[in-house]
Amino acid sequence: MKRSKSFVKTLRAAPKDESAKSAQYLIRAGFVHKEMAGLYDFLPLGLRVLENIKSIVREELNKIGCEELQMTALQNPEPWKKTNRFDDQEVDIWFKTELSAGGELGLAPTHEEPITTLMRTYIESYKDLPVYAYQFQTKFRNELRAKSGILRTREFLMKDLYSFSPDEESHEQFYHQAEAAYKRIYERLGLGDCTYETFASGGIFAKFSHEFQTILDVGEDTIYFNKDKSVVLNEEVLLPEVLDELGVKKEDLKSARAAEVGNIFTLKYKYSEPLGLEYTNKDGERRPVFMGCYGIGISRVMGVIAEKYADDKGLVWPENIAPYKYYLIAIGDEAEKLAEEYEAKNSETILYDDTSARPGEKFKDAELIGLPFRLVISDKTLADNSAELTNRQTGETKLIPLSDLKF
Amino acid sequence: MKRSKSFVKTLRAAPKDESAKSAQYLIRAGFVHKEMAGLYDFLPLGLRVLENIKSIVREELNKIGCEELQMTALQNPEPWKKTNRFDDQEVDIWFKTELSAGGELGLAPTHEEPITTLMRTYIESYKDLPVYAYQFQTKFRNELRAKSGILRTREFLMKDLYSFSPDEESHEQFYHQAEAAYKRIYERLGLGDCTYETFASGGIFAKFSHEFQTILDVGEDTIYFNKDKSVVLNEEVLLPEVLDELGVKKEDLKSARAAEVGNIFTLKYKYSEPLGLEYTNKDGERRPVFMGCYGIGISRVMGVIAEKYADDKGLVWPENIAPYKYYLIAIGDEAEKLAEEYEAKNSETILYDDTSARPGEKFKDAELIGLPFRLVISDKTLADNSAELTNRQTGETKLIPLSDLKF
Repeated sequence: MKRSKSFVKTLRAAPKDESAKSAQYLIRAGFVHKEMAGLYDFLPLGLRVLENIKSIVREELNKIGCEELQMTALQNPEPWKKTNRFDDQEVDIWFKTELSAGGELGLAPTHEEPITTLMRTYIESYKDLPVYAYQFQTKFRNELRAKSGILRTREFLMKDLYSFSPDEESHEQFYHQAEAAYKRIYERLGLGDCTYETFASGGIFAKFSHEFQTILDVGEDTIYFNKDKSVVLNEEVLLPEVLDELGVKKEDLKSARAAEVGNIFTLKYKYSEPLGLEYTNKDGERRPVFMGCYGIGISRVMGVIAEKYADDKGLVWPENIAPYKYYLIAIGDEAEKLAEEYEAKNSETILYDDTSARPGEKFKDAELIGLPFRLVISDKTLADNSAELTNRQTGETKLIPLSDLKF
Repeated sequence: MKRSKSFVKTLRAAPKDESAKSAQYLIRAGFVHKEMAGLYDFLPLGLRVLENIKSIVREELNKIGCEELQMTALQNPEPWKKTNRFDDQEVDIWFKTELSAGGELGLAPTHEEPITTLMRTYIESYKDLPVYAYQFQTKFRNELRAKSGILRTREFLMKDLYSFSPDEESHEQFYHQAEAAYKRIYERLGLGDCTYETFASGGIFAKFSHEFQTILDVGEDTIYFNKDKSVVLNEEVLLPEVLDELGVKKEDLKSARAAEVGNIFTLKYKYSEPLGLEYTNKDGERRPVFMGCYGIGISRVMGVIAEKYADDKGLVWPENIAPYKYYLIAIGDEAEKLAEEYEAKNSETILYDDTSARPGEKFKDAELIGLPFRLVISDKTLADNSAELTNRQTGETKLIPLSDLKF
């Protein structure tokens, strides 16, 4: 891609009300545009990052037998009334609206009720189980306070997976597969080292749920962990009886700020019972379906990665999710000619800065945008049949023979 | 893909309130699920069709220099108030909602106002023009009556492209490029032969707009055209002065029912003036940006194709957008073994019916789901080292040597 062909330019300043480092850089570098508090557009570079994150999540979920679908944002209140979750006293983050033909609708903050209802059409017998279905869907949550750029917004992209199993044993098997898939996902996203599977509150239907928490200064949660990190707890379950059960002492635990990047949850019969999702077992008996749900906030993950890796010069993208791999700068006529050729053949991996900006500005933009490698070709490097390759994360620079370049 | 791995089954009946043929088949064949009137979930097969349509549209738009972004569904009312389009008396299809922090929001029925506002950040000088930006976004329209399955819904996927040009001449150039891109898109979608570029009302800012109308019995529009189809008009502009200008007589025109599958519109300064989107020209003067917009209803196009091609046995998908190319049926142990191998190597093009259904049911499902080719392997065909290939559209069946099979 040639930068001259994009409408997006880097900006000198971010909106004054934007305090998170990631949000400031994402706006200045042209990945997102702020519509208003808690609402962000994804510009071409930002959309490419989102799509890269989605691809990784999709691949790992498909590997464990999950199927992708897409449900509506507008919600029929009926199933939500059956689970007592349409009432604003019970769930306080609804956006609601009215049909002109009459009747109230909600904007889905999550999708347990509609997918449980949908599955009544397809699940009748034990032969139809298990079912693992997921979607990438925009969720709407009427947060009183939107915070930290794309980390907590009122409209965001989420991957939500729902599992439907015949019994607890079968559910547990899949739950462990999902745990493993999540670990592979965070590994591939570049968050493997700093993301912990954390005991968190399970609500009234399960003792614990599991959250995936990434250590992050601006995170909203506090987690506690022991030396070898074999026990990691969300502050909300830091209770004497829990510590006893896990066999750890509070004084042996360290704390850190963290951001939730995913959660997995055993729902048991919480939705299948009130919504009548049953199946006939081998003995001909009707049983409620045993459910689980598994979320990853895709746009939030993008924010966490941006926040985690950014330095004082700008963004730093891990290679797997970077919108392009190389930021290409050419200095001199011959170098420009070669750069044109490289970009023409590799427009999906090279972002070529062919703008009229001075080299110094291009170097600054390369740092702000944060692609994994900066590649500079000049008359000087060409005299050596080489290009200068700089690793954005380490700052390491080396001359590399042109014949060794692989885009 | 193995059908046994999918939660979706074909259904004997569609909801009683579903009158359109395409909607009945799409539901029965498991492409969509009806949430309520005007609201449909896309199941795995349906989502694959949507993604195939998106890919074709994306490719053709990228070819003419367009950039993809994604804006929010929730809308700040401010820019809409400046163009007088937030008032329900002016635009009667808004869904509106309230921020818990206070203030009204809308759910975007289209995106002229936010994208014009966004471009104020990036367009300053003639050097920044032209800009062509598009998105695939869920639109929300509070239709009094939802109709014909996914042809007219309250929440739907739309591709909307906006052009920003320095002047009318530059706009016209791009407008013709967009026209040509649209023709290629409908050609590739399998609607080339029956889709006409149609003069339609241009509102108060342009004499005409152009619609792309596909001849369809259940279409909502009536179009008029002459013998060689060089003149095609929407009924709304069938006026004496228009006929005079085009040099045709009403009695020489034939009429047909049609469904709008796209439109392109010269907006001039309708949005740039009230929203203050200006640029500095070469002479240092401030000028409003000349705009156009270009829509394609992606989920509607899917419905139109379903409706257009379906026969009395079920759906018939053109190869370019079919979720898979082959519906594979194996009869006999040896055939099943071979089918497993084929599917394992070609899971993106083969839908293998490995369910326990009887062959007769599988043949019926093959017709209902409507993949381009049905491929049957049996001990009988294997005795000839062959498979039986049936074209869903023509019904033509032939034996084809296994060595000639290309998935």
